Amino acid sequence: MTAQSRPRATIGTIAAEAGVSTATVSKVLNGRSDVSAATRERVQEIMARLHYHPRRPRRRGGIVDLVLNELDSLWSVEIIRGAEETLREAGVSMVLSAAHGSSSQTSAWLDQLAARRSDGAILVVSDLTLGQRNRLASLGVPFVLVDPVGNVEAGVPTIGATNWAGAVAATEHLIGLGHRHIAHLAGPRQLLCSRARADGFRAAMEAAGLDIPEGSVRHGAFTDPSGRAETIALLDEVGERRLPRPTALFAASDLQAFGAYTALRERGLRVPQDISVVGFDDLPVTRWSDPTLTTVRQPLQDMAAMAARTLLRVIDGEEVDLPRVELATRLVVRASTAAPGAG
Amino acid sequence: MTAQSRPRATIGTIAAEAGVSTATVSKVLNGRSDVSAATRERVQEIMARLHYHPRRPRRRGGIVDLVLNELDSLWSVEIIRGAEETLREAGVSMVLSAAHGSSSQTSAWLDQLAARRSDGAILVVSDLTLGQRNRLASLGVPFVLVDPVGNVEAGVPTIGATNWAGAVAATEHLIGLGHRHIAHLAGPRQLLCSRARADGFRAAMEAAGLDIPEGSVRHGAFTDPSGRAETIALLDEVGERRLPRPTALFAASDLQAFGAYTALRERGLRVPQDISVVGFDDLPVTRWSDPTLTTVRQPLQDMAAMAARTLLRVIDGEEVDLPRVELATRLVVRASTAAPGAG
Repeated sequence: MTAQSRPRATIGTIAAEAGVSTATVSKVLNGRSDVSAATRERVQEIMARLHYHPRRPRRRGGIVDLVLNELDSLWSVEIIRGAEETLREAGVSMVLSAAHGSSSQTSAWLDQLAARRSDGAILVVSDLTLGQRNRLASLGVPFVLVDPVGNVEAGVPTIGATNWAGAVAATEHLIGLGHRHIAHLAGPRQLLCSRARADGFRAAMEAAGLDIPEGSVRHGAFTDPSGRAETIALLDEVGERRLPRPTALFAASDLQAFGAYTALRERGLRVPQDISVVGFDDLPVTRWSDPTLTTVRQPLQDMAAMAARTLLRVIDGEEVDLPRVELATRLVVRASTAAPGAG
Repeated sequence: MTAQSRPRATIGTIAAEAGVSTATVSKVLNGRSDVSAATRERVQEIMARLHYHPRRPRRRGGIVDLVLNELDSLWSVEIIRGAEETLREAGVSMVLSAAHGSSSQTSAWLDQLAARRSDGAILVVSDLTLGQRNRLASLGVPFVLVDPVGNVEAGVPTIGATNWAGAVAATEHLIGLGHRHIAHLAGPRQLLCSRARADGFRAAMEAAGLDIPEGSVRHGAFTDPSGRAETIALLDEVGERRLPRPTALFAASDLQAFGAYTALRERGLRVPQDISVVGFDDLPVTRWSDPTLTTVRQPLQDMAAMAARTLLRVIDGEEVDLPRVELATRLVVRASTAAPGAG
């Protein structure tokens, strides 16, 4: 997607370097299965190293892949809507796949994509391996990443949200209400977006001169069972160590916030009278919870729509000059936050 | 999908009947755009009337379409998961489309499906027109319906849930708790599944010898704003007519039940102390609501998975001997129901 300054590698260069015939390189490019896995990997590794990008025919098959880790979250439906609407308006069909965690299933979507000759892919996966990236590159299938994890590859368009700024806004809201003891239910440690949210929390606390005692930033999954478990662990630890109980929780996702609701209710603590809770995402479900949830709005549909538009431009051969875009987050104040001791 | 006893119609028969060339009939079959709309419709209408089914090549393109009315409901994510998992295991890619209400957009998915030569379609749409059915038939694309509306076409495999029995179970649960004044927030009047749920409600009430006063079965949309609006209208009407206020509400969907929660909270009524509430669907979100929602579990993922399996069998040329399947619903009792006057 960015122009390479070195001389362009050819199928011949790749074949010579790999010690195979050009026919074998073609087979790898075409996603054929009659090549040994070892050979395919060697050829793909060389293609990636030499920055080989096959010249793609301009003709579009009219299919784009949307790949998500899992389809079980309320989060995914927002992403799906945004991508589907933009692609439909462009007359492009959207193949939806769940990558799931395991590496064998993760390859299933890549196998199908290769067999079908997809025009491109929008990837919302947290564990794209180097082998998968190389395979996509060797198939000549352009892709964009939505809110990805790990180190972003240079030249790959990436659409994210301002996670750090959103976390600062959430934490400053709690500090502004008078809270001094605030804990953070963080997301998975290996995800870039979790790290950005935890860093934003720490930055706002430190700017206000507030302590972050050991154990008050707790990494878990972006799920309600994880939010419940970490809240219980936090309350237990505070009790054992005779520390002041936090008067506010900032959760890295709405689902973790709902898990915290469950744990607090089980312990007889009221939201917001005993503990204020802030989430992250602004899923539609935040309107039905009792109390309604103060949260950081992530423009998930807009992020997916922009990813789709960017991908269509790349497919059409345009240069994409902004490889990394972050859309703004925004604090939405509802009923789950109040001044400490308000009850 | 069922064997026809009359002699098989051919392209020649169709062309003669329509007064066009066989080439034109072929163009219609192949979804080409260089045929006038009037000619296409005439040819398709004749194909449908003569029960013409093109012989499809056995080779599969490996793509199946899943078409939903809207992607904005929590309901859709359950359907998507069930279909995606089954199709992925079969090595088939799933194209996801939203039909949306309007007829112009409804055709967009059909145009794309025709251009791409889909192997088949799972339709979860409430307004499939006769023209759309004829077009699917003329393209030779087999389809199955999930929980459809209106009169089901003979021979089209259909997967539903036991809506009537589920509504009876919900209503009997409320009657068993001692409720005598029960109202029903029903779904859209034109949907078969809404009618089945309303009929089940009436059957259980009548079996218990209970009155259903005018205005206590209120049809609306399967959404939370509709549930809120109908609950407010119900309470206002009861107040004006000085009737006894219902002590229980049976909503035809979980989202309508959550809308009722909002309306009741706004009027200072507590669930379940003042009014018990039952939903329908058992979406995952029922666990986070306060109080957690008693509801009728619809096996949405199982329904979609069975639709996908049935479609794959039809694509493979098997006879499907059970054109209509209803999967069992089941009452899940949680905290939103109690004996009347329990508070």
